[in-house]
Amino acid sequence: MVYITRKEIFSAAHKLVRHDWSDEKNKEVFGKCSNENWHGHNYTVYITVKGEVNPETGFVINLTEVSEVLHRKVIAKVDHKNLNLDVDFMQGILPSTENFAIAIWNELEESIKLLGGVLHCIKVQETEKNYVEYFGTLTQNP
Amino acid sequence: MVYITRKEIFSAAHKLVRHDWSDEKNKEVFGKCSNENWHGHNYTVYITVKGEVNPETGFVINLTEVSEVLHRKVIAKVDHKNLNLDVDFMQGILPSTENFAIAIWNELEESIKLLGGVLHCIKVQETEKNYVEYFGTLTQNP
Amino acid sequence: MVYITRKEIFSAAHKLVRHDWSDEKNKEVFGKCSNENWHGHNYTVYITVKGEVNPETGFVINLTEVSEVLHRKVIAKVDHKNLNLDVDFMQGILPSTENFAIAIWNELEESIKLLGGVLHCIKVQETEKNYVEYFGTLTQNP
Amino acid sequence: MVYITRKEIFSAAHKLVRHDWSDEKNKEVFGKCSNENWHGHNYTVYITVKGEVNPETGFVINLTEVSEVLHRKVIAKVDHKNLNLDVDFMQGILPSTENFAIAIWNELEESIKLLGGVLHCIKVQETEKNYVEYFGTLTQNP
Amino acid sequence: MVYITRKEIFSAAHKLVRHDWSDEKNKEVFGKCSNENWHGHNYTVYITVKGEVNPETGFVINLTEVSEVLHRKVIAKVDHKNLNLDVDFMQGILPSTENFAIAIWNELEESIKLLGGVLHCIKVQETEKNYVEYFGTLTQNP
Amino acid sequence: MVYITRKEIFSAAHKLVRHDWSDEKNKEVFGKCSNENWHGHNYTVYITVKGEVNPETGFVINLTEVSEVLHRKVIAKVDHKNLNLDVDFMQGILPSTENFAIAIWNELEESIKLLGGVLHCIKVQETEKNYVEYFGTLTQNP
Repeated sequence: MVYITRKEIFSAAHKLVRHDWSDEKNKEVFGKCSNENWHGHNYTVYITVKGEVNPETGFVINLTEVSEVLHRKVIAKVDHKNLNLDVDFMQGILPSTENFAIAIWNELEESIKLLGGVLHCIKVQETEKNYVEYFGTLTQNP
Repeated sequence: MVYITRKEIFSAAHKLVRHDWSDEKNKEVFGKCSNENWHGHNYTVYITVKGEVNPETGFVINLTEVSEVLHRKVIAKVDHKNLNLDVDFMQGILPSTENFAIAIWNELEESIKLLGGVLHCIKVQETEKNYVEYFGTLTQNP
Repeated sequence: MVYITRKEIFSAAHKLVRHDWSDEKNKEVFGKCSNENWHGHNYTVYITVKGEVNPETGFVINLTEVSEVLHRKVIAKVDHKNLNLDVDFMQGILPSTENFAIAIWNELEESIKLLGGVLHCIKVQETEKNYVEYFGTLTQNP
Repeated sequence: MVYITRKEIFSAAHKLVRHDWSDEKNKEVFGKCSNENWHGHNYTVYITVKGEVNPETGFVINLTEVSEVLHRKVIAKVDHKNLNLDVDFMQGILPSTENFAIAIWNELEESIKLLGGVLHCIKVQETEKNYVEYFGTLTQNP
Repeated sequence: MVYITRKEIFSAAHKLVRHDWSDEKNKEVFGKCSNENWHGHNYTVYITVKGEVNPETGFVINLTEVSEVLHRKVIAKVDHKNLNLDVDFMQGILPSTENFAIAIWNELEESIKLLGGVLHCIKVQETEKNYVEYFGTLTQNP
Repeated sequence: MVYITRKEIFSAAHKLVRHDWSDEKNKEVFGKCSNENWHGHNYTVYITVKGEVNPETGFVINLTEVSEVLHRKVIAKVDHKNLNLDVDFMQGILPSTENFAIAIWNELEESIKLLGGVLHCIKVQETEKNYVEYFGTLTQNP
């Protein structure tokens, strides 16, 4: 079993706010992230796929195909967009880094399986100081 | 003459759009950056001050004081904010990286002089791939 | 289960030396790290907490609270200090990166539990080339 | 159990091509990596060793000895070399990042055991965007 | 006057060898870089353009156009190629980092002028430890 | 004229304190850097040399020789040492980053000239957030 990872960077706006909460509660829980007029980040996403090495190609999976799927199903939808307003797979989801990583996992798991790989981890880095990792719900992970 | 630099990171939303232009023209000139619902970045700002070394302290300038000014006059106003809507010193200014660097220079030049230093460069990095440097209008720079 | 990580940087002095050993033995085992007059590093510490995502907030844990604990119980005690002489939770402990990571784990495990999270990993990077990871003694962690 | 990692960088040429395949097939599977006249990378290799902390030294393993083995058995053979032509432990192996990581593991596993450690992971980063991790075939990993 | 920089990464093979020199002389002058079977690097190129800010757009130059020129005239010719054998603008040039930076400058200077900018600097980073900067032959630079 | 830079990293302890000042004054001016029991950093030093490209070699200067001089005259004296106590060329000098950069310049200028190059800049990075650049006293340098 070998693990292979592809990294991509994109830029998006978001805010963390619940409209069923008062401004005070939003401020208390979400702090600066609840700024009414949005803020944004250069997000880095790491997609890790695991599998046996194909003896013919030396590849676990063809990274060019992983990259194509990642761009089509995620990057094209989020880059230079607003995570709260513009992204189909984030509708109705509070765009915390945790929820965003899970949503990217859900968006990609089947496509990676179709390419012959097993999705192992989605890592989303929001700032230089913070990142989140999600390994799915399967018991064999991490 | 020695040059000393302080780096800080913050996160903000913005968009590049002119309301006196058609959507097509905005799209043609500003591309993805004109997305109606905003996008954002982790911006890195580098402030470089030049001066003689004070023989008593070994310092060109006290970086703690530079950092305090930078936070009070810039970071506190832009971090987790919207550059088009929330920032006093960006009112009426199209928030390109170029204009943003110049505006930060104008915001800081006097304060650095009051601390006994000479502002040499404001560098603003918007993404991992793009950055802008501004050295003021004085003829001795860069 | 989602894993969330916070990174902080601080600067400290230390040396690796056993006073019950000869200078030769110290030199042989600890090499340059045994320099009598100390040396130092910019240490980077990564704290990883795991947990279920709270559906109300989208958070595993509030990172602002993690950061507050990390600063109060670790950073404030080690930043611009001497790990051998100045730090209460390192008394009597040889400040190798391994021992330092374990000591930080012990310092933080209970506080993270009080915040509703489970400490998963303390990673300490001492130089650009070397780092250590400690996952505690629980059997469920790799 | 503590995990300690050493990182090294080296530069090498390689190409991905199977001479039992047509040029078209090579192009289709390996893309730009099949360029007849080679290309190359600054490779980064991370070696992670796990073990108990020795109470006498505070070390899982002496990193100076790990570094010596890594240089003698890997870096000296691959730095400023051609992975397809010049490297004994890559003979007959297609130099994909996956195969390269496994070959480095095989080259180092015994030597690390002789130093009193257990090899946990070989990570090879080929470009800023791609890396591979191999944890051996033992059931307890990762 | 504002300076704007775009960064790109590519991977290439090369070697430093003069066929009018003995192997010993090549080894003495070029060291490991003269390895007969090539080696390679992940090169990073930074292109810096200077100019006045266009008050209509807030841009010194449209970076999308800079990026298009850089890809068409440089990256497409060197990425996953051999600098000694495959690159038209490097024919007859010893591919040291210095010569490579100058050749990239010559390849781009006119195109940048056509876009309305002035090329200020080509920086080429060959390894994490080494880089070269070229500012052209004009007297007003650096 | 081409500029070529070599980067090296080392680890050292230091403190900023004047014994002719009270503890209060030291604390006020030097803050955390005056901690009695030292602190330390992973310092990064960048040495930039300028010159014409030698048409025979494609080099401004042989970086292997620059590296040898840098290690012999600087790194060997400061790595895993105490800048206040252990370093001959820092005797009697307050080890601020500014003074340290100037001292490294003075240590290297003649040696670089003997190698046929002209020293252009010494840059010393003390933390991820702070660095200093010194270009000597010659009038032709910015």
